[in-house]
Amino acid sequence: MIAVDVGGTETKAALITGTPSHLDRRAQRRRPTRPTGDAVVEDVTALVDDLRAESPAPVDAIGLVVPGMVDERTGTGLYSANLDWRDYPFTERLEAATRTRTAFGHDVRAGGLAELRLGNAQDLRNAVIMPIGTGIAAALVIDNRVTDAPGEIGHVDVGHPDPCGCGQTGCVEARAGSAAIARRYAQRTNTEVKGAAEVAQRLRAGDPDASIVWQEAVDALARGILLVASLLGPEAVVLGGGLALAGPLLTDPLGRRLDELVTFQRRPELRLAALGDEAGCLGAALLAIDMVEET
Amino acid sequence: MIAVDVGGTETKAALITGTPSHLDRRAQRRRPTRPTGDAVVEDVTALVDDLRAESPAPVDAIGLVVPGMVDERTGTGLYSANLDWRDYPFTERLEAATRTRTAFGHDVRAGGLAELRLGNAQDLRNAVIMPIGTGIAAALVIDNRVTDAPGEIGHVDVGHPDPCGCGQTGCVEARAGSAAIARRYAQRTNTEVKGAAEVAQRLRAGDPDASIVWQEAVDALARGILLVASLLGPEAVVLGGGLALAGPLLTDPLGRRLDELVTFQRRPELRLAALGDEAGCLGAALLAIDMVEET
Repeated sequence: MIAVDVGGTETKAALITGTPSHLDRRAQRRRPTRPTGDAVVEDVTALVDDLRAESPAPVDAIGLVVPGMVDERTGTGLYSANLDWRDYPFTERLEAATRTRTAFGHDVRAGGLAELRLGNAQDLRNAVIMPIGTGIAAALVIDNRVTDAPGEIGHVDVGHPDPCGCGQTGCVEARAGSAAIARRYAQRTNTEVKGAAEVAQRLRAGDPDASIVWQEAVDALARGILLVASLLGPEAVVLGGGLALAGPLLTDPLGRRLDELVTFQRRPELRLAALGDEAGCLGAALLAIDMVEET
Repeated sequence: MIAVDVGGTETKAALITGTPSHLDRRAQRRRPTRPTGDAVVEDVTALVDDLRAESPAPVDAIGLVVPGMVDERTGTGLYSANLDWRDYPFTERLEAATRTRTAFGHDVRAGGLAELRLGNAQDLRNAVIMPIGTGIAAALVIDNRVTDAPGEIGHVDVGHPDPCGCGQTGCVEARAGSAAIARRYAQRTNTEVKGAAEVAQRLRAGDPDASIVWQEAVDALARGILLVASLLGPEAVVLGGGLALAGPLLTDPLGRRLDELVTFQRRPELRLAALGDEAGCLGAALLAIDMVEET
């Protein structure tokens, strides 16, 4: 099958063979993502045609995952501000363009599915799988299944005064998203940085401004995780995305802050995701496999 | 079968016959709840013996639900501060005492199950069923199933400065629980009131202090529901418990406050629960029916 992960800036596509427990990536393509649903379908169709030519067997299914708000059941991209679509019928349009059955899903939830089946959440019955990049959202695993809940943990109010692009104030993402971390450090120091990774580097070097910005990010994340612990009681939170590349620099202070905040809640274990930026594409492949197996 | 709902102050037991879609209550008993797990099992055993004598057929199962933190799968009452137990093996002890198979559950989640199967949530796939009494918790319905998530929406931080009995500050329950509403009105006016219902009465009569306390309760509830909307995206929130008896006096301002707060979230419909304080007992009966049918 062919798996496609439409990201905010880049679209990844891969020709995948193998079994659900051992996926094999045979060929891969990347290209920049263009806005609008029509442009995405056009570009994905080109990627599919290209990869199909390399396939030793007929391609029986496509797995497609996109960001934003998604309705898996109807195959619709409900809304993406960045990529400029609203109620766009992805499954219908891509099946028409490629004449190939398509399983459609949400990038974060599909990535969570991949961590659950193939990555660092395989032993968990209740978990939150939470990639932290420019944006923050989560796949919520309940009873060993990824729910279709929105999981917008980046946009819960954790009590700080900063506004967020979503129109609310106090959002986790407005302090702990990687873009927010870089922006807040730059504002504080009048020094441009390339991203949150550079703030992490400066933190390691003992920069006190980096330390404050990082600690505020950690506090916002801990408060968001605490809310989820009160409501859902996950065994573990699996951290992914660019910010999780900081490893213990993130998980150590986050664990300490959680220890301070928890009262009656089960304190979830903190783990790092295993699949990195391949999670979305692997999740798209799993969605396609599930679709084929169910029929 | 015999269904038992152990409440914080009163224990209700009923002899129930009929089918899962039409339960018939043949006889009923109530008695005050005494603390400790052993006392509860002793009292429940007496209630069961009493009701068994009225049963036309042998009693094949007991459904027992209790408050606090509960592990349904192991049949354990993990913790109740009020009723003074920790890791108490309810299923094991009640089965030994009654020689009758027992299905064990959590009072709020069982009540949610009853609303889902028999009450005002029958058409909902994703819902939050939220009784508001002295305490506030919720049954979380995802994909038409009541999850075993803790659902402690009463103890999420919604940003006000008041402390809560749980050790946190800003909890929904500390402003919107019925005991908190009565206490806050009394503190504000130096007038004792019998409970939240009396505050509601004074609100109807145009009392400005009642109006402020009520509006602060509504604001805390709305912010709690907003968090759940961001994370879980329920179609509806089904309000139950004593406070929901206020009807539109609660749901009208709560709906307006939600309309103001919502940005990207689906604004959940607000409904009133249908089963009142029978929900827990009916839920206990459903747990027993499910157990019998599964075997």
